[in-house]
Amino acid sequence: MIVPLTPLMFLRRTAKLYPDKLAVVCGEHRFSYSQFNKRVHQLSWSLKNLEVHSGMVVAYLSRNCHRLLEGYYGVIQIGAILLPVNVRLTPTDLVFILNDSSATVLFLEQEFVPEIEKIRKKLKTVKHFIVLNDISRRTWLQSLNYEQQLNKSITDPFPDQIKDENSVAELFYTSGTTAKPKGVMLTHRNLYLHAQSVVWAHQNQDSDVQLHTIPLFHANAWGVTHSITLVGGTHVMVSKFRPTKIFQLIEKEKITSFNLVPTMASMLLTSAGISKDFPTLRLIHLGGSTVPTEMVEQLESAFGCSCSCGYGLTETSPVLTISIIKSHLKEDSSAHYKRAAMTGIELPGNEVRVVDENGIDVIQNGKMIGEIITRSNLVMKGYWNLPEETAEAIKEGWFYTGDLATVDPEGYLMIVDRKKDIIIRGGENISSLEVEKTLVTHPAILECAVIAVPSKKWGETPKAFVVIRPNQKVSKQELKFYCRRKLATYKIPSSFEIVRSLPKGVTGKIQKKILRLFHQGNP
Amino acid sequence: MIVPLTPLMFLRRTAKLYPDKLAVVCGEHRFSYSQFNKRVHQLSWSLKNLEVHSGMVVAYLSRNCHRLLEGYYGVIQIGAILLPVNVRLTPTDLVFILNDSSATVLFLEQEFVPEIEKIRKKLKTVKHFIVLNDISRRTWLQSLNYEQQLNKSITDPFPDQIKDENSVAELFYTSGTTAKPKGVMLTHRNLYLHAQSVVWAHQNQDSDVQLHTIPLFHANAWGVTHSITLVGGTHVMVSKFRPTKIFQLIEKEKITSFNLVPTMASMLLTSAGISKDFPTLRLIHLGGSTVPTEMVEQLESAFGCSCSCGYGLTETSPVLTISIIKSHLKEDSSAHYKRAAMTGIELPGNEVRVVDENGIDVIQNGKMIGEIITRSNLVMKGYWNLPEETAEAIKEGWFYTGDLATVDPEGYLMIVDRKKDIIIRGGENISSLEVEKTLVTHPAILECAVIAVPSKKWGETPKAFVVIRPNQKVSKQELKFYCRRKLATYKIPSSFEIVRSLPKGVTGKIQKKILRLFHQGNP
Repeated sequence: MIVPLTPLMFLRRTAKLYPDKLAVVCGEHRFSYSQFNKRVHQLSWSLKNLEVHSGMVVAYLSRNCHRLLEGYYGVIQIGAILLPVNVRLTPTDLVFILNDSSATVLFLEQEFVPEIEKIRKKLKTVKHFIVLNDISRRTWLQSLNYEQQLNKSITDPFPDQIKDENSVAELFYTSGTTAKPKGVMLTHRNLYLHAQSVVWAHQNQDSDVQLHTIPLFHANAWGVTHSITLVGGTHVMVSKFRPTKIFQLIEKEKITSFNLVPTMASMLLTSAGISKDFPTLRLIHLGGSTVPTEMVEQLESAFGCSCSCGYGLTETSPVLTISIIKSHLKEDSSAHYKRAAMTGIELPGNEVRVVDENGIDVIQNGKMIGEIITRSNLVMKGYWNLPEETAEAIKEGWFYTGDLATVDPEGYLMIVDRKKDIIIRGGENISSLEVEKTLVTHPAILECAVIAVPSKKWGETPKAFVVIRPNQKVSKQELKFYCRRKLATYKIPSSFEIVRSLPKGVTGKIQKKILRLFHQGNP
Repeated sequence: MIVPLTPLMFLRRTAKLYPDKLAVVCGEHRFSYSQFNKRVHQLSWSLKNLEVHSGMVVAYLSRNCHRLLEGYYGVIQIGAILLPVNVRLTPTDLVFILNDSSATVLFLEQEFVPEIEKIRKKLKTVKHFIVLNDISRRTWLQSLNYEQQLNKSITDPFPDQIKDENSVAELFYTSGTTAKPKGVMLTHRNLYLHAQSVVWAHQNQDSDVQLHTIPLFHANAWGVTHSITLVGGTHVMVSKFRPTKIFQLIEKEKITSFNLVPTMASMLLTSAGISKDFPTLRLIHLGGSTVPTEMVEQLESAFGCSCSCGYGLTETSPVLTISIIKSHLKEDSSAHYKRAAMTGIELPGNEVRVVDENGIDVIQNGKMIGEIITRSNLVMKGYWNLPEETAEAIKEGWFYTGDLATVDPEGYLMIVDRKKDIIIRGGENISSLEVEKTLVTHPAILECAVIAVPSKKWGETPKAFVVIRPNQKVSKQELKFYCRRKLATYKIPSSFEIVRSLPKGVTGKIQKKILRLFHQGNP
């Protein structure tokens, strides 16, 4: 028997078996799974009333909130496609994404109404603007807000619509540090298999109470919407990440697990609240960028729980690897922290390799660098309306991540750099990440970015852009000396540029393409 | 990206990430995952040398052994279909199954050579008879035995053959207490999704060392071949179930988990070795028939580990439900044991319902009886060469199990009886199981079986077949009085038949169809 795989199966089961269990905590709101499920059905019926059909795109401009979580089920249940948009996008990107995706409906929080007001005339496809958490005060908004739409809809189960597990369920736009944003199509099957993999790796059970610290429109967060529902756990929504609030919620809601990006981890570790006890915490999972070993050690010690790291991309649902510690490795605590901070090993059912330019697997010595490629049911269906870009990313059954990594003798991956950020100087690979990590240990440096610049002699050499801390001073010469003590000679930047700030995208990623353009004008 | 789901993915990953870890212990043999994987590839190449192709059936007549385990990967890897045959079948059934399945190859252990010799001329399709654990001493056996076949084959990875996840990977014949055996076709997708569900429910990790107590040709065992490989655990093979040997292996191999049917559990509990300590044990899983609450209590206390029960059929890969205890249920220990002994709740991704004759879900009061039906990717592709029987079992997207159960307010199923074993007396349902369970508590009764017999007045009434313990005596009148004290009046058997033994199938199941035929001749 073939039943289309869909994450909707998880909510159906949990609503049936755990009807009275707490499903969502969101500010003052608390919904049981039975209540949450009814709201999900109401949302589906509301969308049907608005003539939203299978294959249409429903966008959200929302911070973490139970209403956005409802969208993860209510939208895809009618066969429509959920598009959670990053709330920090520029107006230009927002217009591009909503038009490119042909979004029909835009749900938005009240605080984003003025922003959308400015651009709404440029939006070619959005028919319905619906405010999530306020009454409608503008003529261009649907007169009924979200709660009113739900209230006038029935709570009956919406009939099963998903006939093809390979139909698109969710659409996410990549942050586009290198080109215009691309829509990543994730199917019902992608999301089902992803959740099944992750609950095993994280050992999630119905006792889990997950704090949704990371915005659900981020790769590091959206998968958790389905995995916690799968096990019958509780979702606790965090609208804005503030350490004091996080510590309060952990205590009040008896949180067992949450995800962090390293920046968030730093904020928590340097906050006063860290000295508390957290007896209910079981797991912190880190993703988003490479994690220093000390950070894992500090987190495990401060929170008294386990800490794992993972790796993935928007295009891979996202999680491909997790730093699961093999049980037979009897390593001492320093080796343990080092391993937990690694990129990890592939999850069962997925194939991840690190290959050289000829497609040969690199030697597992923790040194040889190759590109991460994967053959996996977690890989997207493709880029939205971009068949050529899709064909370029998925070649002969393998998805090319563009990320460079090493593999150690135990098979653990360690990310080295983005492929396009690697610097090839006279045939030697230099990781820009390694040079940046070295520079940033200098006490006067706040942050920095290293890019490849053309060189007649070497082909390419590294160039460093450096931001100095307030009230600090450092010369380029001194930085060169500093590097000489810490780095192999060929890795030392050929030039240093001291700048006031670095160009960043809305997710906080440094935009190296702008630095490259700057260098072209100012070599 | 769509990659065909297959349990072969699990061995590929584990062999890559855990090459030196112990994969299999079988008597004196110990193979690492790298060694085991090489043997699997050798088996695949051997079969190719014998011109076994995709879709052909390869049968095994073998007790639990590393060679049979190799078949779970080496056979299906070439696209062929694995058919492990019950070693206790009658010659008639054996001939039927091997001919019905058109088996091309029969691997057999040395002890079964005389049995096959007697019937081999009736086998129409088997081209190659290969002895597993001896040298070939018969002309009709392939001159090279299993090890010799492997030795002359290369260890290179066999190229990926599985293009369709819905192709058949394993074939198992149902025991046929009611009709001739039917071949159940399980696909690569069935087996992949089954293993993923089970490892989550049993919280299997790479630290698991599984004792294969139940023959791998039984539904209660074959799924474990893939789930333990999925997590990178160790398989410990048990050729014959003897309590002393089981206790020794638990200690020597640091076993963490094993499966039992209730008969095996009774044997262990009444054995002297039970007084030992078992510090490594984590989980005992019971299946195969309903489990008395006291058995769970005795097992948990004797082995100092958790105990769960499950339910499934050959047709459902097999596991549909497990008695996972919901974490928010704070029940006392007697309620805990009762719940752990239940049939359980459906695994995520699968839909299980209990419905009345009109297809309406029964009330969740632990009393109302209905038939278990399921809509699940764990349901077989169908019965081998039996499209009509398949269509009868799978109707409008639901598989009808023929098993009757109640559902309690928490959604836990409890098996009551096989549908065809329920007795309907004047509109009242009587569970033959309940009457049997009552009768067997009488000190003079060794075993018994209750069937429905026609009645002019009531439509049907229960009739009991009773086997008396040696040196005991009891009258039919006394049994009637005994029932009157323990059962509702309408459930008391209308007649008792004292017999010397009960007819049983090869798996030990009582064959009620024979009792019904007997009653027709002796009303």
